Amino acid sequence: MTNQKRSDGTRARILSAAVERFTHGGYDTTSVADICAAANVSKGAFYHHFPSKQAVFIALLEQWLDELDETIRSVAAGGESAPVRLSRLAGLVGQVSELGTGRVPMFLEFWRQAAKDPEVWQVTVEPYRRFRAAFASLVADGIREGSLRAVDVDAAALALVSMGVGLVLQGALDPAEAQPADAGEHAVALLLSGLARGSDHDTK
Amino acid sequence: MTNQKRSDGTRARILSAAVERFTHGGYDTTSVADICAAANVSKGAFYHHFPSKQAVFIALLEQWLDELDETIRSVAAGGESAPVRLSRLAGLVGQVSELGTGRVPMFLEFWRQAAKDPEVWQVTVEPYRRFRAAFASLVADGIREGSLRAVDVDAAALALVSMGVGLVLQGALDPAEAQPADAGEHAVALLLSGLARGSDHDTK
Repeated sequence: MTNQKRSDGTRARILSAAVERFTHGGYDTTSVADICAAANVSKGAFYHHFPSKQAVFIALLEQWLDELDETIRSVAAGGESAPVRLSRLAGLVGQVSELGTGRVPMFLEFWRQAAKDPEVWQVTVEPYRRFRAAFASLVADGIREGSLRAVDVDAAALALVSMGVGLVLQGALDPAEAQPADAGEHAVALLLSGLARGSDHDTK
Repeated sequence: MTNQKRSDGTRARILSAAVERFTHGGYDTTSVADICAAANVSKGAFYHHFPSKQAVFIALLEQWLDELDETIRSVAAGGESAPVRLSRLAGLVGQVSELGTGRVPMFLEFWRQAAKDPEVWQVTVEPYRRFRAAFASLVADGIREGSLRAVDVDAAALALVSMGVGLVLQGALDPAEAQPADAGEHAVALLLSGLARGSDHDTK
């Protein structure tokens, strides 16, 4: 094994041990020593890869939100009409929900730390701003092509991202009653009906 | 001062100190001793009112969610048409958001503990089920009176509660960009348009 490969493996082991510790023990009560023990690496190896516990936390946050960001942008950039692309994004909610169930305690931990730590806050808030910007631009496309009515694009983007966040969190908290297979898609479809051209409140 | 009054005052001091400690220090790292010190009460007085730290946590959760529950039910039970009552509930999002900003770290802590502790989970999940039930019944009223189209009432209720949860959380995380004065109301209005009779997707 090359040094580079061994080093990548060590980094991955640290990240995966940190997820396990942060999820089950919480961020505050987890120490660098706990992560090292769970990952079976020395403190020297840890500090070779990360300057601090906070740096591991931020690396995890960036990794997960970048994945979601990438998925959203690839759907948003498709060639179909805006309503079709929005419906495809709605379909993602179910997937994110399923993927998210195990991750939600970590996401809640990110949000909670974001309220206390300006550096974590900056990294946490940025992706939501990018999501809202991506949705706003998609809604603007729809208005331009005539498939969506002339709504306030920022309000529509906030509505879409809020519904996504709320669906994922409720589905994770209460999978039995708030996560039937197509509930998310159905819920987003109701919102899309409100955006569609020809809906009741066109004069608003 | 009567004993009863002194006792109520002690309980209130413990609850208020616990909020402060849980919000700033986190649930895991806060001990009963920390709460006693912050409340300036003895451990004996603490255990007279609460059997454990978890019991204080659950008492706070119940108190806050009951307030919200009460507000939602009083609006939901009003005599107006379903769309008017739904719009009035949409107006509450802004209020809850403002009230919620300071409380959100505590709410995140509840949700995170709910993922780990079945007793906290039960107390956390119940109010969201009640909210969804209240919204479902309101949407059913609207369908019956002919003001809303014949949507799936559970999906509509999930959509409404998800949007509320998502708006409050995003507004708390990013007040500058995700909490303009009427953003919440505007976002919910878009969803209500999707529920209204006469909207584009009546055939769905």
